[in-house]
This record gives sequence, C-alpha cells and structure tokens, in this order.
Amino acid sequence: MSKGWFTPAAEALRASAVGPVASFDPESTPGFDGDKESGSELLASRGQDLADLQELLYANGRSGDHRSVLLVLQGMDTAGKGGIVRHVGGLVDPQGLSIKGFGKPTPEELQHDFLWRIHKALPPAGRIGIFDRSHYEDVLPVRVHNLVPKAEWEKRYDIINQFESELVAGGTTIIKCCLVVSKDEQKARLAERLDRPDKYWKYNPGDIDERAHWDAYLEAYQDIFELTDKDSAPWFVIPANRKWFARLAVCELLTTTLAGLELDWPEADFDVEAEKKRLAASD
Amino acid sequence: MSKGWFTPAAEALRASAVGPVASFDPESTPGFDGDKESGSELLASRGQDLADLQELLYANGRSGDHRSVLLVLQGMDTAGKGGIVRHVGGLVDPQGLSIKGFGKPTPEELQHDFLWRIHKALPPAGRIGIFDRSHYEDVLPVRVHNLVPKAEWEKRYDIINQFESELVAGGTTIIKCCLVVSKDEQKARLAERLDRPDKYWKYNPGDIDERAHWDAYLEAYQDIFELTDKDSAPWFVIPANRKWFARLAVCELLTTTLAGLELDWPEADFDVEAEKKRLAASD
Repeated sequence: MSKGWFTPAAEALRASAVGPVASFDPESTPGFDGDKESGSELLASRGQDLADLQELLYANGRSGDHRSVLLVLQGMDTAGKGGIVRHVGGLVDPQGLSIKGFGKPTPEELQHDFLWRIHKALPPAGRIGIFDRSHYEDVLPVRVHNLVPKAEWEKRYDIINQFESELVAGGTTIIKCCLVVSKDEQKARLAERLDRPDKYWKYNPGDIDERAHWDAYLEAYQDIFELTDKDSAPWFVIPANRKWFARLAVCELLTTTLAGLELDWPEADFDVEAEKKRLAASD
Repeated sequence: MSKGWFTPAAEALRASAVGPVASFDPESTPGFDGDKESGSELLASRGQDLADLQELLYANGRSGDHRSVLLVLQGMDTAGKGGIVRHVGGLVDPQGLSIKGFGKPTPEELQHDFLWRIHKALPPAGRIGIFDRSHYEDVLPVRVHNLVPKAEWEKRYDIINQFESELVAGGTTIIKCCLVVSKDEQKARLAERLDRPDKYWKYNPGDIDERAHWDAYLEAYQDIFELTDKDSAPWFVIPANRKWFARLAVCELLTTTLAGLELDWPEADFDVEAEKKRLAASD
C-alpha cells in the first residue's frame, strides 16, 4: 500500500492547525506518513495533475475567464523559496506562470504605498502567479528593523486583509505558504554556500546579521498567522528542513487549490461543424 | 553507437545553409541521424546541460554581469511555438526565463513605433528571454496584409538589423528560430483542434483564412532570412512536422549558444574565510 497524506495537506498544514510557530518542528511531515522515496513518486504523479490543471486554467484564461491563482511564498533566508519556484513551478508549462521576486524596495517603489509594486505584479487571467517574498515583507523586516513606525506597520495587517479580499472577489485564488527551517538548518545551509564556489552567488553576508533577529522574526510571523490567515486567503506553515517534503507539500496545496476551481475546457466560441467544412475545403 | 548530430545543429540548420524555404522539407532532420527514441534520450541529457548553463547565466546576472540570451520563435500557426516554450523552456528553472508572446498589437502599442513593445519585453540580465512571435510580425502579417505601405515595411529590415546589433552590443546573445510545418501538416493539426474539445481553445477561425496567403508568407520569410540572418543574430530554420525533432533542435541550439558564453561561477564578492568565522560564531 502506498503511503501518503492521511490528513489533507490543506488541513494538516493550515496555520491555525499547527500551533505556535516558535515551537513548530521543521523536521516534521504533518499529515504525511511516507518517506522521501514515496514522496518523490507522489510529487511526480501530483505534478502531472498540476500540469493538467494549469493547462485548464490557462485555456480558460485565454477564453475570457478572468480567474487566476496566486501562491505567496515566505520564509527565512535559505528556507528554500527559490527551490519551490524551481521544482514546483517547474512542473508546469512556464507560459502559465507569472513569477515575481520582491527584494528590498527600489527608490521608486518607496515613493509609493507598499502595495504599489504588488499590484503591478499580480498574475494575469489564467496564470499561476508565484511571489517569492511579497507584501508580507512590509510586516517582517520592516517591523523587525523599525523601518517605519509601529503605528504604521500595525495598520498594515488590516490593509493586507482588505487587499487580499478584493483580489479574491476579483477572481484570484490565494494560497500563502511560509517555509520554516530551524536555526541550525539555516546555519548548515549558509555553511554550504560558503564551502562551494558554485553557491557563493547565493550567499549574502547580511543573512548572518539577520540571524540575530530570529526570535523577532518568529514573533512577526506569528502575528501574520494570527491576523491574516483567512479561509479566503489561507496561510500554510510548511516544515522545510526536508526539502523533498516542502516541495511535495506546496505541490499538493497548489494542486488541490486548482482542482477546487472545478474548471472545464472552454466551450467553442465558433461553429465546430462549419469550421470542419471550411477546413476540409481549404487547400 | 548512439546516433545524434553528425553536423552541428548551428551549421546544419542555419538559414543560409538550408536553401529556399519554399522547397524546404519540414519532415527532414538536417544534421541529425537518430530517430525519435534516440532524440528523446538526447533531449533529456542536453536538457540537463541546458539547465546547468541557465543556472550559470542566472548566477552571473545576479552578480553584476549584464549578459542575457534571447530566443526568438517564429513560424506559421500550429508550427509548435508554444510547444517549444513548454518543452524546451520547461527544461530549466522558470525563474531564469522571461517569456513574452506578441499578438495583434494593442491600440496603445499601435501608437508607438513597432519596436516599442519589443524593448519593454527584453530579458533582464541573466535571463533567457523567449519571444513567441516578435518584431518579425511587423514584416510578416503586416506585409502580407498590407497593414502599412510597402515603403514603410521595406525599411524595417534595416531597422531590425540595427536594433539587434545594438542588443548584441549591450550583452544580449540572440538566436532566431523559424519553425516550418508543411501546409498538409498544418491542416491535420487544425483538424485535431476541431476534433478535440480540449483543443477548441487553441482554435482560431482566422487560421484558415491565413492559409490562403501561404505562399506570400513563405516569400516574406525568405526575405527575412536573406536580409536579417547575421552571424551576430543568426536565423535557424527548424523542420517542425516532427515535434520531437523541433524540440531537440531548439534545445541543442540554445544549449550550444549558452555554452558559447563560456561562463564561470561568479567570484565571491566577500571574504569567504572571514564569513565562515562569522557564521561559526553565530548562534
């Protein structure tokens, strides 16, 4: 018997189900009782489901349906956000993806409200948008480093909820995944980047400085989960010490989200039989 | 002995090598003596090379190198441009791609010169840009349907050459691939779209009307090959009746193009030993 999800990922990993992030186990595999090998097999088969569903979404987008899906990825440095984009995003047709990474805001972005750059990067109809970091940065490093006054960042949770509920009303299905690594695992991953010349480019000395604020980040994440985890825009907490599990979990969440749209192939907007005749009569 | 390329793809498929497009055989596999099975195996292994090279390009782009690669795809309707994006683009990390499809110009685009929308879509440093159709549309349907006076489209070949040579000077390596299907194969592919409800969304009644202009399109392509096939921005003509070969050929051209950049992993822009000590001293 193949092992797999004994609790649906969307239940087992929901932020409201997993308890405080400070005591969350990044080695665990909530809801899943398989191992790395069975996880890889399942990823391949669910990846095919995901690719099929993505094509359906794209086909509908091309046919006037304005729905889209937005996957928000957050997590500490080295948590594996880029790996998710590569290995889960890589399962589908790249034409169906709209990928955007959010770094430190540019001077131009800083002259606008914090959602300005987010709006500009929203996925078009029929696409799966992936945000590698997002508007949540504005209540994470911005909060931890006091980049704006507390009175300002405190208001942002409501602003974000309002923004996301407008997106949902407009046809975007949102899922938010926070990848959680342990502080020791982060240290090991940073050490690997320093040991391998082919990984130097991923290393940023600032990442070590951020480690000193680990607990403040966990508090900031906890507030995010308590204030912005809505049924219409849920947060999932993904243990990410085991990369294979993080990829499997995000793939499963994305696949079930797309399946939940219950899409069919678009109807023909032309007369099929008449077109068959025209084609047959063509040279 | 494994079969494969007996002439490098970049030689065998170069527009200047293949002769007039009107007598080109879309069933052929120039330079390659393997079959579909050996082609699939080769695609998998060259795909891994491509993925490795793409990561190198991306790493360099993230480290201050401004180079990029631009793959221009052209071809008649149903020639398989979208399949190339999916099956060749899908071989690499989607974060490293910058994909843009060019349809009928929007009213806003029509208020600018024909390269305006092209400039806006150029790949950022470190990316592989893929154009599904391109500025060459402005000397294809625009020419065939007299959408601008002849005196205007005639000037565009020089303008395009100038534009592309500026791109190359700026660090973008350009390869241009034209997928060529036979008129009969196009008919069969359109028929399939009309036979399968999961393909209706790809069907456009206008595609049948375009078939009446087949020879005019071939002439327009021939002029493109004669006027804009430069060593610095070469055109390749890809027989596309066999999808497996078209994918293998474009993958091979892209892989050898990236290999030709002779990229190395970026040097560390920090003191590796000092960072190792800082990390070791961190909690």
